[in-house]
Amino acid sequence: MTTTATTPATKQFMSSAQLLEHWQGHRNLTRRVIDAFPEKELFEFSVAGMRPFAKLAVELISIAGPALKGITEKNMDAYNEEGFNPTTKEDILKKWDEETEVINHYFNQISEERMQENFNLFGQYEFPVYQNILYFIDNEIHHRGQGYVYLRSLGIEPPFFWERF
Amino acid sequence: MTTTATTPATKQFMSSAQLLEHWQGHRNLTRRVIDAFPEKELFEFSVAGMRPFAKLAVELISIAGPALKGITEKNMDAYNEEGFNPTTKEDILKKWDEETEVINHYFNQISEERMQENFNLFGQYEFPVYQNILYFIDNEIHHRGQGYVYLRSLGIEPPFFWERF
Repeated sequence: MTTTATTPATKQFMSSAQLLEHWQGHRNLTRRVIDAFPEKELFEFSVAGMRPFAKLAVELISIAGPALKGITEKNMDAYNEEGFNPTTKEDILKKWDEETEVINHYFNQISEERMQENFNLFGQYEFPVYQNILYFIDNEIHHRGQGYVYLRSLGIEPPFFWERF
Repeated sequence: MTTTATTPATKQFMSSAQLLEHWQGHRNLTRRVIDAFPEKELFEFSVAGMRPFAKLAVELISIAGPALKGITEKNMDAYNEEGFNPTTKEDILKKWDEETEVINHYFNQISEERMQENFNLFGQYEFPVYQNILYFIDNEIHHRGQGYVYLRSLGIEPPFFWERF
């Protein structure tokens, strides 16, 4: 079988380096959203019985780094958000910044071929690796959109959506 | 200058066909979110003075197809959401489905090389084409996350985030 770069099915949309930069830009914005909450409201405020933004941040932290580690090491350790129990905004921001490096470290070890292979992430989500990674980012944008409503409900102007770096 | 497929800067994350499938999956989910709103609340309900979900849907409809048309035709017509003024949920869903085909039509005309070229979208947003396209999807996920909070506030269970097709 031969393929060419111009076959619609295989032409590149973006490189892995571009995806990583895009993701870290989103993570910078999410960091600003975390930081925009007053300490108390970060841990306590919510709308319609949904989770406070601190809980959503813990979810995001519990996915990205551990998932990439699982993918590169081919381990299927279960998803777990019990290992990180922050009590202050500072705890969350510090861990957020540490995970930035963890993400870069593991992401850069994933080859082009591996992106297309199926992997049973957390022993539970069997998809091509690139789809799992897109899911992490989409999930972050989704929950952050929720955070924007919390901030507006608190009378706080959220950060600009387009400001990433 | 020589490059190889294994250079980190150029290795593929995903193909254009995969990105389009991913986007249309998100659009299916957004369609379900539109449909989950009662007619009246779709046009009137909001939280914290933000726009009702019908207005957000009109924004999404005014971006995707027109933007891709602008990119493929290299026209820099300004962004405009005045041309579509739906008064019923059915109006929005019908237009949504029409735009599905418009998106497929124009997206498939964008070459791998073009994805990397700068374009001044709507005469206003000068970025590489792939970044503009990612922005459309991110913006949709962001506003849809806002819609999830509206639905929860209305006591309505939103569609599953992971259900796309």
